[in-house]
Amino acid sequence: MRGRTVRRRVRRIRLPDPDGEPQLTERSDLLAGEEPLGIRVAGQALTMTMRTPGDDIDLAAGFLVSEGIVRTAGDIASIRLCDGTTCGHAGHDGTGNIVDVELRPGLAVTSAQRRNFMTTSACGVCGKASTAELFVAQPWDIREDPTVLQAARLASMPDALRAAQRVFASTGGLHAAGVFGPDGELLAVREDVGRHNAVDKVVGWALREGRLPMRGCVLLVSGRASFELVQKAVLAGFPVLAAVSAPSSLAADLAADAGLTLVGFLRGGSMNVYTGDERVVVTAPAAR
Amino acid sequence: MRGRTVRRRVRRIRLPDPDGEPQLTERSDLLAGEEPLGIRVAGQALTMTMRTPGDDIDLAAGFLVSEGIVRTAGDIASIRLCDGTTCGHAGHDGTGNIVDVELRPGLAVTSAQRRNFMTTSACGVCGKASTAELFVAQPWDIREDPTVLQAARLASMPDALRAAQRVFASTGGLHAAGVFGPDGELLAVREDVGRHNAVDKVVGWALREGRLPMRGCVLLVSGRASFELVQKAVLAGFPVLAAVSAPSSLAADLAADAGLTLVGFLRGGSMNVYTGDERVVVTAPAAR
Repeated sequence: MRGRTVRRRVRRIRLPDPDGEPQLTERSDLLAGEEPLGIRVAGQALTMTMRTPGDDIDLAAGFLVSEGIVRTAGDIASIRLCDGTTCGHAGHDGTGNIVDVELRPGLAVTSAQRRNFMTTSACGVCGKASTAELFVAQPWDIREDPTVLQAARLASMPDALRAAQRVFASTGGLHAAGVFGPDGELLAVREDVGRHNAVDKVVGWALREGRLPMRGCVLLVSGRASFELVQKAVLAGFPVLAAVSAPSSLAADLAADAGLTLVGFLRGGSMNVYTGDERVVVTAPAAR
Repeated sequence: MRGRTVRRRVRRIRLPDPDGEPQLTERSDLLAGEEPLGIRVAGQALTMTMRTPGDDIDLAAGFLVSEGIVRTAGDIASIRLCDGTTCGHAGHDGTGNIVDVELRPGLAVTSAQRRNFMTTSACGVCGKASTAELFVAQPWDIREDPTVLQAARLASMPDALRAAQRVFASTGGLHAAGVFGPDGELLAVREDVGRHNAVDKVVGWALREGRLPMRGCVLLVSGRASFELVQKAVLAGFPVLAAVSAPSSLAADLAADAGLTLVGFLRGGSMNVYTGDERVVVTAPAAR
């Protein structure tokens, strides 16, 4: 395993104004790290993802939440990075790039929870293509969460997330996910080359802190909101998912079904509320 | 299947200046479509991806190229959207969301090419975690491609891509991939909620047009450049991959190994050349 960032030589080209000279500079640049992470449960490979190294235990734990495999910290008996001594391959180059998980007695990954459930089904996605079946069963009822937020509080969150990002400023290459508590305080920030990984990392943090479901909290993502991110927010019990950029149509459909408040284009003092708009209120200055 | 875009009601909130009133408007907004697409080869499910409907045949064909399963149009005997009549499930809701592929006689998907090769491996990713093994064997030698490009030509490509994007302007939610020919002309543009899908769509177009390998051409992506996108560019035989945003460290490593020119932060008349910089030249105005 290398690191969150990797230094690399780069040639920077700046084209000239009409009467100027082009500028070519050679310099050393920081790039976001990207390496494979394998997740094994009970010694059996479950999935592999390309991720930015760091918070790998949280990433694996959050992935298990998002797939509906665990829902409390107690569901995980042990979770650790493989050091090359447990799998009979001492010194292999996967050291630090595999997380080994043991579930509590009585809990196991079902064949339906394995990522490629499809390849065992004779008809492929034929029977799975309804959105209801794509969606993993949700362990919490988000509809019951009475959270109401001031729009101004939501509007302040992207700046807080950016201020807290450790890697983005240096590489320009990372997605971020942040958790904001009921009083608007930033509780956790995680980054990754993959936006789904950044979310898994904050969800894994929350699981291990015993905070699930995330009642009263906002999950903020630096990019777009896809079906997959809505599913992760719902499985972690967030009442509100906010994205700096656009949601997809399926993201909005599933947010509506689950009772999740979905906010998009959260930037520069404005936002679009796609679903669950009863949770976002605006108080005029005079009324404050 | 629905469409590339989906109309949806949205509440827009614009926060007030210190002495103004907040603006709340209800309006109908276009969102990028997102639905599952299953790919079946010889009747057996190979993978499922969440994608923006449209160009689904190209998406499936390009995916097969990127996984190293096909390399010429002749490798595909037939490819078509399932209409619900071939799988014994007439009227199922996957109609239009499954692509059925038959390969030419003698060609089959190997077990190693199946996406979840991991789940059949006792040791998981232990033996697969070196970057060399992650990388699918490349069918073309990109190093032999003598393409040389003016930096000014590269700099003009993002504007051309944006001008050609059909959906982005209305939804703000789609990644784009474009193919530029040896004379800088834009040959194809495809869009998707997933950047890897947008690239698979242009690669599938190129395969079906009999254009692989893409000697002399540039693959431009609207977002970041990850390991996965470098692999797709290499498998399609592009000598140059350009990204509007940052590459990851592994993307740069693999581009260097494969002889691919990797350009990042291509915007506003400047760019960073991470690998293969012999292919990008700058001619000062006086020397033109």
